Amino acid sequence: MGPHPAVAAIRLAVRRVLHDVLTDHAPARTPDRAHDAPSRAPLVLVACSGGADSMALASALAFEAPKLGIRAGGVTVDHGLQSGSDLRADEVVLRLTELGLGPVEAVAVTVGREGGPEAAARDARYAALDAAAERHGAAAVLLGHTRDDQAETVLLGLARGSGTRSLSGMAAVSGGPGADRRYRRPFLHLDRQTARKACMVQSLPVWDDPHNADPAYTRSRLRHEGLPALEKALGKGVVEALARTAQLSRDDADALDAWAGRAEASVRDAAGLLECAKLYALPPAVRRRVLRRAAIEAGAPAGSLFARHIEEIDRLITGWRGQGAINLPGRVVAQRQGGRLVIRQG
Amino acid sequence: MGPHPAVAAIRLAVRRVLHDVLTDHAPARTPDRAHDAPSRAPLVLVACSGGADSMALASALAFEAPKLGIRAGGVTVDHGLQSGSDLRADEVVLRLTELGLGPVEAVAVTVGREGGPEAAARDARYAALDAAAERHGAAAVLLGHTRDDQAETVLLGLARGSGTRSLSGMAAVSGGPGADRRYRRPFLHLDRQTARKACMVQSLPVWDDPHNADPAYTRSRLRHEGLPALEKALGKGVVEALARTAQLSRDDADALDAWAGRAEASVRDAAGLLECAKLYALPPAVRRRVLRRAAIEAGAPAGSLFARHIEEIDRLITGWRGQGAINLPGRVVAQRQGGRLVIRQG
Repeated sequence: MGPHPAVAAIRLAVRRVLHDVLTDHAPARTPDRAHDAPSRAPLVLVACSGGADSMALASALAFEAPKLGIRAGGVTVDHGLQSGSDLRADEVVLRLTELGLGPVEAVAVTVGREGGPEAAARDARYAALDAAAERHGAAAVLLGHTRDDQAETVLLGLARGSGTRSLSGMAAVSGGPGADRRYRRPFLHLDRQTARKACMVQSLPVWDDPHNADPAYTRSRLRHEGLPALEKALGKGVVEALARTAQLSRDDADALDAWAGRAEASVRDAAGLLECAKLYALPPAVRRRVLRRAAIEAGAPAGSLFARHIEEIDRLITGWRGQGAINLPGRVVAQRQGGRLVIRQG
Repeated sequence: MGPHPAVAAIRLAVRRVLHDVLTDHAPARTPDRAHDAPSRAPLVLVACSGGADSMALASALAFEAPKLGIRAGGVTVDHGLQSGSDLRADEVVLRLTELGLGPVEAVAVTVGREGGPEAAARDARYAALDAAAERHGAAAVLLGHTRDDQAETVLLGLARGSGTRSLSGMAAVSGGPGADRRYRRPFLHLDRQTARKACMVQSLPVWDDPHNADPAYTRSRLRHEGLPALEKALGKGVVEALARTAQLSRDDADALDAWAGRAEASVRDAAGLLECAKLYALPPAVRRRVLRRAAIEAGAPAGSLFARHIEEIDRLITGWRGQGAINLPGRVVAQRQGGRLVIRQG
């Protein structure tokens, strides 16, 4: 008798990702290197909070990695946001060790305040994971985000109303400093229920982060009220549709960014200034991306540059009636001068 | 004292659109034609259900059109879906006439069943509006869709999960048969509350379509349950963010469609067949659109061609392992033959 379908599903998802990791990190197959193969076995880390999603992920990694000659370790991040979080982290280390993972470690971080509590915790977490990956020379770090997390992320992006890139959710593969395919999300096409079920049938104790049910957090309100109401109105396929939207939006945003990169070079004059007539001839979607790139190059912080800023610059091109200079975040100024668009720090 | 702000807002929105219509339909300014200018005054029709949005629209059109030398008429469509709908239509005709519009007419239609009740009613309605526009030689037909309708349309598109085009909502300007800028939606940036308020302060009686509150309809559930829950989770700006998403998605989809159009020509060999190697080199977002275009050209009905069909064709290019022919809607078959992708009706 094979494993429970939920366990089979999480293992298959992890196996696929490990095959990718092996392909990315294939050792050179020269005869004289064959003898030191064991020391070159790649290490894959799982980032584990102790919640159902990442515990399921850890269990599948512990099962699949040895079969492929991959070493499997784990990291848990103690955000220090609740009393006893250090004990919690120690407990997660124990559970991961019991699963047979090694090395396993708990890393304590200090969460700042920039960008709000959720963004600050995320920044601190990824910095710690990046450092752990570097320290252990890990080939990859697995993250337990599920299709449900992806759907929530798309809705959070939708609420920003800033277009296709913001609808593209989380990538199945994304980079860290110095490692452009470090993070892998094997469960991005798996629903949360499957991860929970897999923990249950494997008798893995899981921890429910009280933050996940705290209505003070936007994501929590979305999870417990917003998405269920949307499912009630639109039908049960909403989560899947949102996850598919993420993938399609990511591909669209990538293609348009590539186009904008090429277009930007073609609309500059010999002195490197943007020519308004050439900008005008671009499709609006491409022109807006070129303007955004130019503003960021001039020193405007990407995170403070909103759609309304870009629209205002765009009107210098498409609705020219002698407007004055436009002030952008980061003391960047955009103005039209003799058929050229000049964007620079003031 | 000027008009109430809500009335000022609806009039401004209509005035802007009428200026556009005048630009599109400027009569030739030759001296020998000057004498027959009055008979050439363009006619603009308002499509009016008797509900608040379209009654507000009719009132603003009646006020603004004469000032610009535009003739203003109205059409109400009797869908025949409720008993007494004919009397309702007669009443709307009376109200539009009282506003000073002319010509005004009620058109009875027979609603079929194709695509579900909402789609069938919409198809019948637009066919009747197209016919009325042709009959009266109208330069444009105004529709009362508001920003709230737009937000709902984006969410309905999101539920389909078929990407950027399906998130682009309704266009501010769209075509009918033989008239590519027939329909105009002046209220697309105006909220429903403003339209209601404008009716109230002008003492215009409005009719609340019971369908709008009937939970049997997806759009109604979305309006009364889905969107409010989403606003509660994500904040009051959701409707505006959704409307902005529509505009950005439309521009992105237009740009990518244009790219796919050019790419399609470049990936065909001398015999007109699609070359797999050239398809492979395209960005996924562009390749998928090329494949979709090719399938439609081969006879697959656009409405039955889903993302999963395109993904399956795409795997003939990106995940080739000797797959057999793929059956598509409309008896269209896609298969790989000697480095070429052949899509044709079987």
